[in-house]
Amino acid sequence: MSEQVRGRFITVEGTEGVGKSTNIAFMRTLLEAANIPHIVSREPGGTPLAEEIRNLLVVPREESMCELSELLLVFAARAQHLKTLIEPALAKGVWVLCDRFTDATYAYQGGGRGLSADTIDQLQNLVQGSLRPDCTLLLDAPVDIGMARAGARGALDRFEQEKLTFFDNVRDAYLRRVAQEPDRFAVVDARADLSVVQRNIAQVLKSQIELYQGGQHG
Amino acid sequence: MSEQVRGRFITVEGTEGVGKSTNIAFMRTLLEAANIPHIVSREPGGTPLAEEIRNLLVVPREESMCELSELLLVFAARAQHLKTLIEPALAKGVWVLCDRFTDATYAYQGGGRGLSADTIDQLQNLVQGSLRPDCTLLLDAPVDIGMARAGARGALDRFEQEKLTFFDNVRDAYLRRVAQEPDRFAVVDARADLSVVQRNIAQVLKSQIELYQGGQHG
Repeated sequence: MSEQVRGRFITVEGTEGVGKSTNIAFMRTLLEAANIPHIVSREPGGTPLAEEIRNLLVVPREESMCELSELLLVFAARAQHLKTLIEPALAKGVWVLCDRFTDATYAYQGGGRGLSADTIDQLQNLVQGSLRPDCTLLLDAPVDIGMARAGARGALDRFEQEKLTFFDNVRDAYLRRVAQEPDRFAVVDARADLSVVQRNIAQVLKSQIELYQGGQHG
Repeated sequence: MSEQVRGRFITVEGTEGVGKSTNIAFMRTLLEAANIPHIVSREPGGTPLAEEIRNLLVVPREESMCELSELLLVFAARAQHLKTLIEPALAKGVWVLCDRFTDATYAYQGGGRGLSADTIDQLQNLVQGSLRPDCTLLLDAPVDIGMARAGARGALDRFEQEKLTFFDNVRDAYLRRVAQEPDRFAVVDARADLSVVQRNIAQVLKSQIELYQGGQHG
């Protein structure tokens, strides 16, 4: 019996309203068409407990949440998600498609809230060890375009209520992540027509599938 | 105008059923008698958000919480408690009497769950900087005695449901903390008659009050 090839861990990132949900649904259909076992999850969240932590994070409340508490809650949810869902899936050869992961922490808690990358690095190492996404799709668009779409959805959560400059800083932090690890990221311009966006995404996924199938038959 | 003398930060530790609540109430009457401004709080908890995090920690659930998630939730609650309640109080000269603090993390998540002291050190430094309790009262008793008292209270929370060996490890970890920082700890034998226990506690508090008043008039 050959050794089980690990599933691929693909994360999807971007600021509000760039089309993550639509395009994750699209990626899912591509994986189904290719007969690749996969699960779709999200952060913060992904298990009942991690979703309870998410709820603490997103619901607006009177008491102002301190930056460090927010960061630790994000990583508490992540530790649970990794241990309970993501790591077992990858080990069984199941792909994990995740709506946001640690790049979002560097973007929102780092870029947005101003916490240092060193602090986030420290928690990333503690919680993830050497685990990193195999590929991260960044759907990128100027913040005002996405915000208009997100605003049209109705009631805003604690993050969506932030000011435009917050999201500019989030986007800048995402782009810095790309500059630091260009090989891991695939950046897709989310302003383009959906058909163009999805053609680009399909190309990214095709490379990932080839890498996986190369591992299986290699 | 003279500079504001910081309040003293007194924490009370011990395994289940050693009499923390009774003796914290007693300490409160001593501080009132001495006209010392003070608040009483507890961990995990102490603010509405931190109490919500406490709730996640103590309520039994079907999903097993991973050790690291538990540790990060404890420190998320602590970060919020420190920033919102403890630090502002101490800065105003108000004493904080706290039912459990970071020694409990070394005892429960370290000794009990088996997480390394290095990991806890790292989070302690991140969340507290150089802040440590001025004095920690450890109410110490063999675990079986305390457990019988705690069990008599009714429904057990997620921690109280642990096995006896868990609490033996917790107690051992507390005693290791004492050995490491003997000057900060006052250990009181909780098996003694309540009158004896409280005579010992009154002595500890008297020294703390003298230190505080020395600071005020010095």
